[in-house]
Amino acid sequence: MARSGGRRGQRRERQGFHQLPWRNLVNPYAPIDMLSADQIETIHHASLRILEELGIAFLLPEALDILDAAGAEVDHKTQVVRFDPQLIEDNMAKAPPRFVVHARNPEHNVIFGDNHINFSTVASAPNASDLQGGRRPGCYEDYCNFLRLTQALNVIHLYGGYPVEPVDLPPATRHLDCTDAFIRLGDKVFFAYSLGRERILDGIEMARIARGATSEQMLREPSLITVVNSSSPLRIDAPMLEGVIEMARHNQVMVLTPFTLSGAMAPATIAGALAQQNAEALAGLAFSQIVNPGTPVIYGGFTSNVDMKSGAPAFGTPEYTKAALASGQLARRYKVPYRSSNANASNVVDAQAAYESEMSLWGAIMGHAGLVLHAAGWMEGGLCASFEKMVLDAEMLQMMAEFLSPLEVNEDTLGFEAMRDVGHGGHFFGTKHTLDRYETAFYAPIISDWSNYESWEEAGAHTATERANTLYREILADYEPPPLDAARSDELAEFIARRKEEGGVQAA
Amino acid sequence: MARSGGRRGQRRERQGFHQLPWRNLVNPYAPIDMLSADQIETIHHASLRILEELGIAFLLPEALDILDAAGAEVDHKTQVVRFDPQLIEDNMAKAPPRFVVHARNPEHNVIFGDNHINFSTVASAPNASDLQGGRRPGCYEDYCNFLRLTQALNVIHLYGGYPVEPVDLPPATRHLDCTDAFIRLGDKVFFAYSLGRERILDGIEMARIARGATSEQMLREPSLITVVNSSSPLRIDAPMLEGVIEMARHNQVMVLTPFTLSGAMAPATIAGALAQQNAEALAGLAFSQIVNPGTPVIYGGFTSNVDMKSGAPAFGTPEYTKAALASGQLARRYKVPYRSSNANASNVVDAQAAYESEMSLWGAIMGHAGLVLHAAGWMEGGLCASFEKMVLDAEMLQMMAEFLSPLEVNEDTLGFEAMRDVGHGGHFFGTKHTLDRYETAFYAPIISDWSNYESWEEAGAHTATERANTLYREILADYEPPPLDAARSDELAEFIARRKEEGGVQAA
Repeated sequence: MARSGGRRGQRRERQGFHQLPWRNLVNPYAPIDMLSADQIETIHHASLRILEELGIAFLLPEALDILDAAGAEVDHKTQVVRFDPQLIEDNMAKAPPRFVVHARNPEHNVIFGDNHINFSTVASAPNASDLQGGRRPGCYEDYCNFLRLTQALNVIHLYGGYPVEPVDLPPATRHLDCTDAFIRLGDKVFFAYSLGRERILDGIEMARIARGATSEQMLREPSLITVVNSSSPLRIDAPMLEGVIEMARHNQVMVLTPFTLSGAMAPATIAGALAQQNAEALAGLAFSQIVNPGTPVIYGGFTSNVDMKSGAPAFGTPEYTKAALASGQLARRYKVPYRSSNANASNVVDAQAAYESEMSLWGAIMGHAGLVLHAAGWMEGGLCASFEKMVLDAEMLQMMAEFLSPLEVNEDTLGFEAMRDVGHGGHFFGTKHTLDRYETAFYAPIISDWSNYESWEEAGAHTATERANTLYREILADYEPPPLDAARSDELAEFIARRKEEGGVQAA
Repeated sequence: MARSGGRRGQRRERQGFHQLPWRNLVNPYAPIDMLSADQIETIHHASLRILEELGIAFLLPEALDILDAAGAEVDHKTQVVRFDPQLIEDNMAKAPPRFVVHARNPEHNVIFGDNHINFSTVASAPNASDLQGGRRPGCYEDYCNFLRLTQALNVIHLYGGYPVEPVDLPPATRHLDCTDAFIRLGDKVFFAYSLGRERILDGIEMARIARGATSEQMLREPSLITVVNSSSPLRIDAPMLEGVIEMARHNQVMVLTPFTLSGAMAPATIAGALAQQNAEALAGLAFSQIVNPGTPVIYGGFTSNVDMKSGAPAFGTPEYTKAALASGQLARRYKVPYRSSNANASNVVDAQAAYESEMSLWGAIMGHAGLVLHAAGWMEGGLCASFEKMVLDAEMLQMMAEFLSPLEVNEDTLGFEAMRDVGHGGHFFGTKHTLDRYETAFYAPIISDWSNYESWEEAGAHTATERANTLYREILADYEPPPLDAARSDELAEFIARRKEEGGVQAA
């Protein structure tokens, strides 16, 4: 990995990259309630009926045994598990409403619950793109550059997965190299994939080493996050269930997100898709609480719809926004943090990418999402991670962060004396009231260009996407890795060497 | 004006232009309250203090006489009017909370109040642009094409002014030709500028002719709309006041919008800008009620901020969104409909144009704006009307309209039986529940492209803006003017001929 520390002191003065400092964000506004309390109860009861009458297929014998022992009605032949409503309700009540996830840099710890909001990177895209290189399959170089960009952008709180899948790394040891890069290139909370038991156990151990923590400490202090997608409809597969079990046993954070695309893997009605999403989420979340009561979990909502003509998934649609808001209501009913996304289906970083993202973001923010996954860089319904989009999203996220700072209304901000001084028809440019606030009065953008048309044209007539391209490359040129304790660095290298010697992940 | 009626029957089959039908939209959700009830009262009282101690300059002797007679404290020399709080409160109480504005096609009447939302065109831009012709000064041809596009796009409810200023028409008679085009090219509610008494009186008479109404009927049925901007800070100029007086006397709709750009014409704090906005709005609205108690008015909020480094106005900023939401709270306090905007400061129809527009739109929608001015086509902080942006905005507005349709939650939409039929791990593509909803299940976009990357690339790899360009030209090619009664058409032509003989507007 290239270290840019040697360039310190000779760095060019960058124009225009002023960002807000790292902040743990809290939403001070009431959420938008899409549904009435009665409608939420109707969906809740429809989910309980699904769980009781249709059940969920748990495709792992170990999971079936655990559920059997807990009192669920298990058919070991079909692997379908039916739940008494009380079993679900009792276990959902054990999930914590609030928890902290620990980063190797404690200043980058993140909080879930109490209306906190956290933004993560795009995750799991098979392709990467930028204006110079176009669209290409994911590789380790692009992977690392996304991590560097994430570390540099204060408004991104955590890694929500591999921003792009580095297919040039061998699958059996890819997770070791990817996690190594999470730790060495950044100091924010990171992610392990629930693709079987081993990857999760390796992730937990590497998170422990990165933090210099003991195993006992790790059991008290969640430091790793995973997302488990149900294989909708009404099914959770074996590698995912292994992840649920190990993450729960180690008290690490599991996000259960059903992939309920309305019209494809769920009914062609948002109410039906929500009922199914809720059933699948409740099954997975209750299961985690059966494995380890009180383990930190997040309710994931990802319901969107397909284009009925082509079957293509759509995101940032009106239906998507409604589902995002309603999912937040459901999560709040169970008093667990809520995960939403910043999604769009555009193939190019254009106006569509922006307006679909905004429709998603407003659904997430006003649905009181605690985790906004794919908050920066997501394109094409998840099939591509874009460097320009990551920077544009950072702007959109910063604007949201600033929107979440309440207005101050007091004698000083009301500015009566300034108005008296300026009088009728004057202006406030040079007044003391204005000059006192010159530096901090208003949000300063990182990409938005507010110059007039003539100045903009003279400066090259660049679109926001072109400006984002310039900026992302400047940020990478200026990037310096955060310090890592030498002993931890050595321990990490030794762990990876040993696991590689063992051949990495043995099972498929 | 080119009539395309002769092309009927030989029209090409257009791909992809499916729009939602005309609808009077209602917002079913609770607004976002940016400020507490106490904070709203604090701003209200700050405004009353401004009105009582600093006063507002009314730059028209006739207005001073009216206010003098009503009991305000008038200084005829400085033209500053100070208001007792009770005079403001008493007159604000006379403004109607709800009214209908009549179009020449009654199906296009619009309703203000009761959470109705109406979208208008961009207004008053000095420049027009599209991808073929680039940016150019406004002309009558572009003006007419914007009117045609507005008539064709169902989601645009009314004309909020001249989309672009046709500077190739002589100023003294421009309003006659522009209003003639409003009436002949469309059948939606239109607009007259408060640039002196004559333009307003001509506008009212032409609205009467277009509707085939009597003068008495016009007094009962508002059929014309105007926007009055105060010349902030704390001043309303003479031509605007003539507009307020004539519109009120004729019971036509007046939107009072202070131009309180925080840091320039208002204090560099949003609270201060809101207090000043509120003072100016209350002064103008109360004045209209003194002229004619009960005349329909709308509270306009346009508070945004400047870039403190350049003094350039910014729109769709976090501060803008906060101000939009808070302004809605103020308007609701006075029980009058609220006007907001779909604003952005981008110089090109790109991601910035879209995300700033969305930040503005969400502020308008969740602030419960009854009138969203500049909802379609606005660019560059109002200095340019874009054909591509108008079509992209129509998409964003349609998405909002669809978002405002509540979710249906019932036995049928919950889809339990469909889930039972599909079972664990199946799909819903071919189920009866899906097929029954095939045509109408989800929002169908007019510009958004949800195809996969390969299909999108094969189709030419067009951005949303390029697709909007193609579509706007197709819509214009297919445009047909709405029918106009021959007698009204003749009367209109005679009126315009007579007014042109008289030389149009006599005063400057």
